[in-house]
Amino acid sequence: MVRTINENTVTDAVIEQMSGTSAPRFKEIMTALVRHLHEFGREVDLTAEEWLAAIRFLTAVGQKCTEHRQEFVLLSDTLGFSSLVNTLHDKRTSDEATKSSLLGPFYRQDAPVLKLGDSIVSESKGPEVVYYGQVTNAAGQGIPNALVQVWEPDETGNYDLQKLDPSVMDLRGRFRTDSEGRYYFRGICPTGYRIPMDGPVGDMIRAQRRHGYRPAHIHFIVGAPGYRELVTALYVAGDEHIDSDTVFGVSDSLVISVNPNDPASPIPNLPTVHYDFRLAAAAKSAAMSGRVGADPSQILQKAH
Amino acid sequence: MVRTINENTVTDAVIEQMSGTSAPRFKEIMTALVRHLHEFGREVDLTAEEWLAAIRFLTAVGQKCTEHRQEFVLLSDTLGFSSLVNTLHDKRTSDEATKSSLLGPFYRQDAPVLKLGDSIVSESKGPEVVYYGQVTNAAGQGIPNALVQVWEPDETGNYDLQKLDPSVMDLRGRFRTDSEGRYYFRGICPTGYRIPMDGPVGDMIRAQRRHGYRPAHIHFIVGAPGYRELVTALYVAGDEHIDSDTVFGVSDSLVISVNPNDPASPIPNLPTVHYDFRLAAAAKSAAMSGRVGADPSQILQKAH
Repeated sequence: MVRTINENTVTDAVIEQMSGTSAPRFKEIMTALVRHLHEFGREVDLTAEEWLAAIRFLTAVGQKCTEHRQEFVLLSDTLGFSSLVNTLHDKRTSDEATKSSLLGPFYRQDAPVLKLGDSIVSESKGPEVVYYGQVTNAAGQGIPNALVQVWEPDETGNYDLQKLDPSVMDLRGRFRTDSEGRYYFRGICPTGYRIPMDGPVGDMIRAQRRHGYRPAHIHFIVGAPGYRELVTALYVAGDEHIDSDTVFGVSDSLVISVNPNDPASPIPNLPTVHYDFRLAAAAKSAAMSGRVGADPSQILQKAH
Repeated sequence: MVRTINENTVTDAVIEQMSGTSAPRFKEIMTALVRHLHEFGREVDLTAEEWLAAIRFLTAVGQKCTEHRQEFVLLSDTLGFSSLVNTLHDKRTSDEATKSSLLGPFYRQDAPVLKLGDSIVSESKGPEVVYYGQVTNAAGQGIPNALVQVWEPDETGNYDLQKLDPSVMDLRGRFRTDSEGRYYFRGICPTGYRIPMDGPVGDMIRAQRRHGYRPAHIHFIVGAPGYRELVTALYVAGDEHIDSDTVFGVSDSLVISVNPNDPASPIPNLPTVHYDFRLAAAAKSAAMSGRVGADPSQILQKAH
């Protein structure tokens, strides 16, 4: 017997055909995805021309991805979906912990290993700033030997991955906290920038008349055994795009100011940014990462 | 002032940032998409690991696309989304018209121009069949000079685009109906096949324990000035996958049988498939195509 497929029955037909999925969580996710995707199609009464435009757009996004560029992460970011996943992560984590923010598409896992006090600058010319603070648990106790990964764009708003030779590393580093959980290093004053606008996501941003800018910020990943890895970023107060971040990463608790004259600085005679990171204890079952993002080359390696 | 972004407020923040979109329909579609996408994320409480798996999957789908392969069309098809868009199209069209079905990823716009009675076979060895019928309007009157485009897989279930040399054309043709709207040509008996399983969509189908097969069918696009272009396919009754098509293209009114002894055949001594296509009048505003799909090379050309 052949069924009659119409705009309502097709959804159940798909869910029924997926009902044999062996992994329960995968089945749950795909069932919900199909339901919401179909509801979307019905609600807007999507035409074939619009469907084709979507296929072309998604294909272009995929073809734009390289080992140094992740256009799908950018799409997720600009649709607020990455930020949503971050907030869901924070909700599952202790309220005491530092909030997450976007990893973005410019993380690299093999940044240089540096000593406390070192500079992450190798080529850029921006004004020097000291970043320092303490990595603690929810009770405020310092965590020794925590891994602090940091990266930021240069004074023109470009990450090393966006340069002519993306194999050269600049403004990245990996540090270990001292016996009291303290970290300190030299970098440059954070710079705001426009997301890459030369791909299909840039076309979308223009069609939506969005400015496409992110407020000035510096990225951090902070982790230690027994704690949930914290993926976050610090945003500079007063930036003109602080309340209109095109990827929705700013949260009020992550806003910092540069202090031009800080007697408490571990490195004298430089402006400072002081921020303490508070880590949540790892979940009992598994120390799940909140890392919304990945090294572009890692994503591509896993692709077919 | 910096807002507090949480899993609920982020959706409004995105919609607000898109509110300046100049094209009203694009704004409507993207607003609905963001709302449904975020609802999906919240409903399943998506984790960062799952998000990353999705980014990897979509990237792999995009990288699998070539001028001869359209993996995003295949993804849309296997999620029932293409079929949904077809049914929405049929709903907007006259009830009298022949139902749509999936174009699929193997259409080519430059198929050979043939004369009525010609064979579309150039290389394949399947059993010969005559296809014939009439192209009419909703009142049943024949439409002369209508364009009938047809394509089908060979006896092994592969389209020419899937062969070693995809530039060679086989089992495709373009015909014009005669003065009474009649068409007739020779092809082979339709074959069922498995969708391409060597890409990320194949991985999904396996993880969902779906068989991945389409029932035996032959594709048609029928068009004439003043009528809505009909994109459809005819499905062979009795096929073991007739009620479990992995892309949800079968509808009861599109099921046909091969007649081994048909005295009405325009070409004697061959089995026949007789089907009349009924076209809806074009919409007053624009003769919109119901073509859910496109030539893979066309999609890629438009990509960045």
